[in-house]
Amino acid sequence: MSQALRTRLFDELDALTLIDPHTHINPHAPAASTLADILGYHYYTELAHSAGMAKERIEEPGLDPKEKVGRLVERLAPLDNTIQYSWLIEIAQRFFGFTDEYLTPANWEQLYDTAVTKMRQPDWSRQVLAQTKLEAVFLTNDFDDPLEGFDTQVYVPCLRTDDLVFHLGKETVRQRLEKASATTVRDASTLRTAIGTLFQHFTSHGARACAISLPPDFSPCKVDPREADAAIQAVLRSGTAADDDQRRRVSNFVFWTLAEYCAEFELPFDLMIGVNRAVYPAGVYQGQDLYDSRVSLIQYRELFNAFPQVVFPISVLASVTNQELASYSWIFPNVVTHGHWWYSNTPTFIEHDAAARLEAVPRTKQIAYYSDMYKLEFALPKFAMYKRILAKILAQRYCIDRGWSEERAVALGRETLRGNVERVFYGQK
Amino acid sequence: MSQALRTRLFDELDALTLIDPHTHINPHAPAASTLADILGYHYYTELAHSAGMAKERIEEPGLDPKEKVGRLVERLAPLDNTIQYSWLIEIAQRFFGFTDEYLTPANWEQLYDTAVTKMRQPDWSRQVLAQTKLEAVFLTNDFDDPLEGFDTQVYVPCLRTDDLVFHLGKETVRQRLEKASATTVRDASTLRTAIGTLFQHFTSHGARACAISLPPDFSPCKVDPREADAAIQAVLRSGTAADDDQRRRVSNFVFWTLAEYCAEFELPFDLMIGVNRAVYPAGVYQGQDLYDSRVSLIQYRELFNAFPQVVFPISVLASVTNQELASYSWIFPNVVTHGHWWYSNTPTFIEHDAAARLEAVPRTKQIAYYSDMYKLEFALPKFAMYKRILAKILAQRYCIDRGWSEERAVALGRETLRGNVERVFYGQK
Amino acid sequence: MSQALRTRLFDELDALTLIDPHTHINPHAPAASTLADILGYHYYTELAHSAGMAKERIEEPGLDPKEKVGRLVERLAPLDNTIQYSWLIEIAQRFFGFTDEYLTPANWEQLYDTAVTKMRQPDWSRQVLAQTKLEAVFLTNDFDDPLEGFDTQVYVPCLRTDDLVFHLGKETVRQRLEKASATTVRDASTLRTAIGTLFQHFTSHGARACAISLPPDFSPCKVDPREADAAIQAVLRSGTAADDDQRRRVSNFVFWTLAEYCAEFELPFDLMIGVNRAVYPAGVYQGQDLYDSRVSLIQYRELFNAFPQVVFPISVLASVTNQELASYSWIFPNVVTHGHWWYSNTPTFIEHDAAARLEAVPRTKQIAYYSDMYKLEFALPKFAMYKRILAKILAQRYCIDRGWSEERAVALGRETLRGNVERVFYGQK
Repeated sequence: MSQALRTRLFDELDALTLIDPHTHINPHAPAASTLADILGYHYYTELAHSAGMAKERIEEPGLDPKEKVGRLVERLAPLDNTIQYSWLIEIAQRFFGFTDEYLTPANWEQLYDTAVTKMRQPDWSRQVLAQTKLEAVFLTNDFDDPLEGFDTQVYVPCLRTDDLVFHLGKETVRQRLEKASATTVRDASTLRTAIGTLFQHFTSHGARACAISLPPDFSPCKVDPREADAAIQAVLRSGTAADDDQRRRVSNFVFWTLAEYCAEFELPFDLMIGVNRAVYPAGVYQGQDLYDSRVSLIQYRELFNAFPQVVFPISVLASVTNQELASYSWIFPNVVTHGHWWYSNTPTFIEHDAAARLEAVPRTKQIAYYSDMYKLEFALPKFAMYKRILAKILAQRYCIDRGWSEERAVALGRETLRGNVERVFYGQK
Repeated sequence: MSQALRTRLFDELDALTLIDPHTHINPHAPAASTLADILGYHYYTELAHSAGMAKERIEEPGLDPKEKVGRLVERLAPLDNTIQYSWLIEIAQRFFGFTDEYLTPANWEQLYDTAVTKMRQPDWSRQVLAQTKLEAVFLTNDFDDPLEGFDTQVYVPCLRTDDLVFHLGKETVRQRLEKASATTVRDASTLRTAIGTLFQHFTSHGARACAISLPPDFSPCKVDPREADAAIQAVLRSGTAADDDQRRRVSNFVFWTLAEYCAEFELPFDLMIGVNRAVYPAGVYQGQDLYDSRVSLIQYRELFNAFPQVVFPISVLASVTNQELASYSWIFPNVVTHGHWWYSNTPTFIEHDAAARLEAVPRTKQIAYYSDMYKLEFALPKFAMYKRILAKILAQRYCIDRGWSEERAVALGRETLRGNVERVFYGQK
Repeated sequence: MSQALRTRLFDELDALTLIDPHTHINPHAPAASTLADILGYHYYTELAHSAGMAKERIEEPGLDPKEKVGRLVERLAPLDNTIQYSWLIEIAQRFFGFTDEYLTPANWEQLYDTAVTKMRQPDWSRQVLAQTKLEAVFLTNDFDDPLEGFDTQVYVPCLRTDDLVFHLGKETVRQRLEKASATTVRDASTLRTAIGTLFQHFTSHGARACAISLPPDFSPCKVDPREADAAIQAVLRSGTAADDDQRRRVSNFVFWTLAEYCAEFELPFDLMIGVNRAVYPAGVYQGQDLYDSRVSLIQYRELFNAFPQVVFPISVLASVTNQELASYSWIFPNVVTHGHWWYSNTPTFIEHDAAARLEAVPRTKQIAYYSDMYKLEFALPKFAMYKRILAKILAQRYCIDRGWSEERAVALGRETLRGNVERVFYGQK
């Protein structure tokens, strides 16, 4: 009975047309062009590497896409238990008519060829969006992205700001900033002007969010303007060799300035909290980052209080931070829960974390899920995974444990999956 | 089958008459006098505020109770998913014959009027206790409460000590202490005498516990008497402006002294660990506190070792601390698990935390639940929520997973819900 | 249906012959000789003590084994809810034909006598291994163990190194090291030679792992050789009175040297992370240790990067560290998940932690379980507990949630329970 109930709820949720509020899609090449774009996703390369495949085999310069897929398929078996592997099989089955349970040295080539044929169709990305019932996907744009040549109603710009906050000491970043903003950065005032230009550019091109990922030890605070001047000048002078205090002060100044512009331009500020970069520097591309789960939202106390008018959709990297996220969203009007990020985007953690949010945070303040994908094909299996878990939670914890009707349960799912994306990012009531 | 089993177990547990070992009931006005006392509970005001309702609308000075309820009801819809909302509906249905699923602008007024009529009955609080099958409720008394004018068998005094430990620098607190104890506080010795007077007063009025809530960074230690003298004098001199070290020393001295008196007067010392006060100072009344989940019971190592004769019923604010609580209770004879506190008092966390305790801590050392309520009406839905979860755990993890009989499962539930309250707070074997 | 499925999966898993990759078995007396060896296990003595039994009653010098069992049985009732108690009953039922549900003052003596009779049979330990379907058990050997007089194919030596890393300041430890290595330790170089001799000795006697337990604040790093010399000389001079920095440096030097030898001798290095020793010094034997759950694998970043050729099977003491363990194993090729340790070896935590690992870590990198036992009789109930939970996870999260066949689910269980022990510790592909 519970199984049938889950299926009914899933079917209702699966009928929704969605907007994906965080991805890494390249709007100029949103879908995969070969299976190498699917199997080259860091989840597969890093897991294959973790299971023993040499980095050099995966990242050989000039490697032909088909050869790359062939090599990876040979080393996929050790990961066929993972949820990530299930995404791959679901893509193969749903988009390319694959009927096997495993991708193997014996069957991959036919899949590769079938996929290439489909991917070459000029409207392939539109087909993927349609089959996935995706209306729009949010991007992650470099701050100097021209934002031209694509439909910003479908591929929605978001201003990604990691470089500005953490890498302003790099010559290249400063040059990019000065060029994009047509401003010479000399001090706090000119840096602020330069950043304002970016917000002008992004919002005039339909940007819906400012976003950043943050390390566990980051604790934002407002910087005194004179101290900011001194720190910026030190960083302009010494670059990445400037001392830690000065660099931290610049990070804080830029971060706080971003929040101020989010207030001015009415942009939500997506915070993705908790990642340490390059913990395993010998790892494959994008497979080097990990984390220290000892982080607390108390570090953001000053920020949340200082900017009541800015909405902060928050993602946390570790499930142990999820209760804090639920509690802070329950108390702070401007804190909103946002998806299940990266190392917490696996069923056991999603189930625990989503269940905890659903029962304690106002239903208008929970953004259920985003795909974080690099290629459009991944939204289907990732959202399907989430919707299956949501259906399980709604069936077991609402319809059964709390006696809710199915209609009420589905309405809650619909609001968190779709309604709140409109509410938070499109300002709809 | 599992559903029917859960129902049978719940019915057995629900038949018990209980003692609620921690509440904030005012014994002179234990039950609500209008629905405003129900909807004014911080869970509703803070969630409504979090979902967008202005604090000024909720806390307007001189606001008529009925008007207040009307305003809140208009803004309740965004929280109708929460477990807290379900408490409200269960109160309305069980005490006032409400038959709808939601409280809305269309139906609230009738409920308000029905409730007022019932609440005006002179024995209303006794009716609520009877319907809830509550025999006694523990209070949270200010240290200078005269403890007179109520039946201390039903409304059991507990000495709450936050003010003494953390706010002795405030002039008003010192005056209240000197008045209540008829002692002039000049140094460690006179402070100790003053505190002893409070214990004398409370235990002679039937107090059953000393209690305190503690911030995550508190780490109790014994203070050298001469250092205590100096610190107390500094705080007497400079009040809240005394330096942090001196104030911390005074906190530690007072805390340690409380533990010594708990030993002498044979009172359990309830520790509620992990809250940061006023994290969101612009929040509604009682809706401003949050926490840093990075806390460890290792901070209480010296205390637990120094007072083997004192029982410490411990509540932790964050579910991530629950495993430590289970482990410390499993090892330390004087550590007892105590309820599911505040931000952990929602089904997903209760289920995980209670299950972990039940299977690893001696059954005689677990106090299942307390309501933490401000008005008597809340015990019914809160305990019902807990008992439903307990029935689920017992059904799934004991009867099914471990092959226990229903009788055995119910007996375990009975002991943790009722027996251990008697054992720990009434010294019954 | 789900129940029948679980049973079928369990039966398949339970049919496997296993190797237990971490125990504290004494190969010269592997099985219990009386029930006192069973009830004397720290889980029972510490829980009985926690529930109120005086340490002196348990640890009275010269106490007769039968008298000791009689005393403990009188105080067991308060723990009959615990999973540990269920191990005891399962041992009594499976090995000694006990048919009751509880061990009581009325029935223990007959069990005691039956057990003694069986335990006196000369092949008792072999009977236990056979009934448990255990092919080999890994030991925890002192670094100066002669490793003689037992079959190292069945009782597999492991070099335990806590004393070397943390207690080299103790005169007795240094003497044991010098004697075992026939080396006079004077500086980094001679200390390194002495340790190398131990690896030579252990590997020539079939050792399969080096192992250590580590406190939460340990953060290994490579020590400069000159600093190591100075620190070692300070510790040789002042012993445990040497200053903390010097002692920490010696710990780090020894630890790093162990890792280097693990690389050279191709031994996996078992890290058991997170225990604080003697938190409750008045506790019973082995019932004094607890932990601070604020620990992160980021502390091992330098180590994991420096020794890509060493496999690190990692156990974490607290469930809140389990997600990090899963993530680090997912990224680092040389990090492997290892069992469910001590305070996390209870069903609720195992279920959450194992589920999280199974879906995100390559299946070749997960060692499902070890018993940690001191007497052979405990492997049966402990592994049975684990296999029941694994069957539950596979039934609910794989067969039902993900549509896996039972064969596929059983194969995953088989690999993590048995295959990976061979892969990691026996170098089988």
